[in-house]
Amino acid sequence: MKLSEGVEWTAHACLLLSILPPGVGLAAKAIAEFHDLAPAYMAKHLQALKRAGIVETSKGPGGGYRLARDAAEVSLLDIVGAIDGNEAMFRCSEIRRKGPCISKQASFRAPCHIASAFGRADNAWRAELAATTIAQIAKRTAENSSETNRDDLVQWLSMKLGEPFTLSVRS
Amino acid sequence: MKLSEGVEWTAHACLLLSILPPGVGLAAKAIAEFHDLAPAYMAKHLQALKRAGIVETSKGPGGGYRLARDAAEVSLLDIVGAIDGNEAMFRCSEIRRKGPCISKQASFRAPCHIASAFGRADNAWRAELAATTIAQIAKRTAENSSETNRDDLVQWLSMKLGEPFTLSVRS
Repeated sequence: MKLSEGVEWTAHACLLLSILPPGVGLAAKAIAEFHDLAPAYMAKHLQALKRAGIVETSKGPGGGYRLARDAAEVSLLDIVGAIDGNEAMFRCSEIRRKGPCISKQASFRAPCHIASAFGRADNAWRAELAATTIAQIAKRTAENSSETNRDDLVQWLSMKLGEPFTLSVRS
Repeated sequence: MKLSEGVEWTAHACLLLSILPPGVGLAAKAIAEFHDLAPAYMAKHLQALKRAGIVETSKGPGGGYRLARDAAEVSLLDIVGAIDGNEAMFRCSEIRRKGPCISKQASFRAPCHIASAFGRADNAWRAELAATTIAQIAKRTAENSSETNRDDLVQWLSMKLGEPFTLSVRS
């Protein structure tokens, strides 16, 4: 039971987009290049983010992909939902209602306690991801990155954006 | 991202085995029949439970599958591990270390905050499933089952075991 690779890719893509200056976008190709990822797959995943309303695109100078809302409003759960969907991990097919032991008079007043327990676990997982936003991750990442890493990033983004880029983490 | 069907099947199988009298087992075929499930797949899943030390088998009269330990010592997480494995849901491939932006001098002192957040979510999910045992589920199920359902179960198990079965939920 695995999250798809696209969740990792797009979480990092959103992290990158979150540090762009307001109104400025980045081409899908550059987003893929940033972590040396396959451009076609990255483009596909970015389209999924766009359908989910997490990113938007614009054309012309400064165009490309950018976050469609504040990074504090983009949670890891939003990203999981966009890429892997929102279905529960445990599929209850109510097998307790099947079999020779179940007479016509059988009744099931309470929900299946097995399904309920998996539901609680699912909720705990979702709550943790819903509480973690791209803004928080950007802040923690900036606090923990070395000066070299920040310089590398500034240099690369300045080149890609075609204008001097200054790194500022917005709260 | 889904748990496999076998998790649902074996959770219900363990629930059934938990109400058997001490030392008494049930054939794989009967366990499958109980919820009208495919015998071959059920047998395969029961073998996985056996490899994980959750159930054991014995031959002869009263033989078959039975829990290898007290139902209070079998958690839903144990069952998930036996059927779907224990790997984390999020696979971090450290893509932050890849790409043109990463110079030779780059360093990553802290773990990736994206991977850390998914790790916390994973832990929350596992903690909930580890805290839920088959004994708890059996108790809640018994408390919520109708008299008809209990009678049906007693009648079916008496037939399968070849001796009168009395339903008693052990704490």
